[in-house]
Amino acid sequence: MRALWLEDNKIDLRDIDQPRKQDEVLIKIRKAGICSTDLELVKGYYPYAGVLGHEFVGEVISSPFPQREGLGVRVGDRVVGDINAVCNQCEQCLNGRPTHCEDRTVLGIVNRAGTFAEYTTLPIANLHKVPASVSDEMAVFTEPLAAALEIQEQIQIKPTDRVLLVGAGRLGQLIAQTLALTGCDLRVVARHTRQQELLSARRIRIIAEEEIQRWRWDVVVEATGSPGGFALARRAIRPRGTLVLKSTYKGEMNVNFSSVVVDEVNIVGSRCGPFEPALRLMEAKQVNPTVLINDEFSLSDGVKAFERAAQSGILKVLLTP
Amino acid sequence: MRALWLEDNKIDLRDIDQPRKQDEVLIKIRKAGICSTDLELVKGYYPYAGVLGHEFVGEVISSPFPQREGLGVRVGDRVVGDINAVCNQCEQCLNGRPTHCEDRTVLGIVNRAGTFAEYTTLPIANLHKVPASVSDEMAVFTEPLAAALEIQEQIQIKPTDRVLLVGAGRLGQLIAQTLALTGCDLRVVARHTRQQELLSARRIRIIAEEEIQRWRWDVVVEATGSPGGFALARRAIRPRGTLVLKSTYKGEMNVNFSSVVVDEVNIVGSRCGPFEPALRLMEAKQVNPTVLINDEFSLSDGVKAFERAAQSGILKVLLTP
Repeated sequence: MRALWLEDNKIDLRDIDQPRKQDEVLIKIRKAGICSTDLELVKGYYPYAGVLGHEFVGEVISSPFPQREGLGVRVGDRVVGDINAVCNQCEQCLNGRPTHCEDRTVLGIVNRAGTFAEYTTLPIANLHKVPASVSDEMAVFTEPLAAALEIQEQIQIKPTDRVLLVGAGRLGQLIAQTLALTGCDLRVVARHTRQQELLSARRIRIIAEEEIQRWRWDVVVEATGSPGGFALARRAIRPRGTLVLKSTYKGEMNVNFSSVVVDEVNIVGSRCGPFEPALRLMEAKQVNPTVLINDEFSLSDGVKAFERAAQSGILKVLLTP
Repeated sequence: MRALWLEDNKIDLRDIDQPRKQDEVLIKIRKAGICSTDLELVKGYYPYAGVLGHEFVGEVISSPFPQREGLGVRVGDRVVGDINAVCNQCEQCLNGRPTHCEDRTVLGIVNRAGTFAEYTTLPIANLHKVPASVSDEMAVFTEPLAAALEIQEQIQIKPTDRVLLVGAGRLGQLIAQTLALTGCDLRVVARHTRQQELLSARRIRIIAEEEIQRWRWDVVVEATGSPGGFALARRAIRPRGTLVLKSTYKGEMNVNFSSVVVDEVNIVGSRCGPFEPALRLMEAKQVNPTVLINDEFSLSDGVKAFERAAQSGILKVLLTP
């Protein structure tokens, strides 16, 4: 099968064997999305060699499990999948934190062939059936939308909270859409015109950096992954407020932790989230991720697709095998 | 009156005017305690010039308020006092966070003459009457004991939690005593022999650094204020665990925030705490801070007292005017 292969900071299209794992479900990829993590992987941010990609919607081609109604997904089902494949035996798995499995592989990121290919495999426990009314273009956003919802899984957003979102890129747009559903008093820092237009179209309010008052925000979500974004978030958060870190940062960051102690700030790291609520919100049309799509390429043009995705202001580029 | 005065990184005993504030209560100091913050102030860590000291127990000498039963403290009462004097008008005061008042003065730390003197003044709202059964030697610990209790004011410590306390100095000992009351599975990293003996006497379990497993602790309290202590705490905390920062840190610290995001760690800064629970626990003999006392000096020997307090392994040095 064809697949986009990453090695030594370069991607190319290769013809490789179709994946075969006796105890996993074989999935034919229908659509896959390029995310910031993929771009970082190409830059060599994490060490990974193999098939890239973790956002996808696909169809179950074969399964080693009984094909009975109500017993997980079945052949022919349209599915999306949790990216962490876990051991079910370690301290974290046994204590209800499977996404933190100490022996996990991660789709297209850690020791597991990804979704920029014609086929991929995943354990059946990772798969979720996509409701008929949710299109492929929408379903391919389930993974990042779940990551956005992880915020509400970790902390309580009150309807009366003043919430500042710093960053309105790929993930920021989805976070803005889901935070807006809480009824909170949300403002978003968005630099690019298209980011601003997408927010305005949903009546989500934008705030200029110079208007952000110090010590005034109950919750600040940092979604830029840049030291500048972190510094802005740190200034904005009120004493005893909660600062959610939704992006990874390159290398180490210099932070004044005395001020974190004096202001009793709560800093929360946030990563992968729950798929079922993401699917429910898309089915109910409460969010609409498809407005983020800038472009769609065939897998054969995968290298071009990556170039497009890396351009400034581009939100989502999809791949179709 | 005599007072220990800090200026240009030096302390000396001075004869200054007795403090007089029309709308505040005049207190005669009975005992005062030297804390790590005082030592840091002398080193020039914060910019402050004036009378040092914020831990104290004293007696109300005069008050501008009606002397009626149940109406705050009265002349003759033995009192302890919250160190933050607040405006009651700012965003933080009006939202139930008075210790974070944006216009606050802080006893012996920020724009307010402290307690290493014969007299001090505080707003009546700051003062708490000391129960008769709580001795001066005990009551002088109310402020740091309240700071220890701020942890349980901010986060839930479950009886089943595995809790690691890094640091068993002045504040660490009090944190160990209060955390032990929760029934949690507590281990303490204590470097000095006397620190270890005090913990063992209360059947609080010590752990050697090399025995601390990675990703295994539900809550880690960092009470050393050192980058090494922070690094140890960061390694020990489990995914989605809570890391409480109980000490301030000099300057900035380099931290890998990507790992904070990936492990979804919760970092909580923690500062001043509630006085009434601290007094209740001392009255009920549930904690015993007096075991921390190494030495006691008269205010006239204040400079010597500071030298003693700065020696390695010394926990608490008291001053008596």
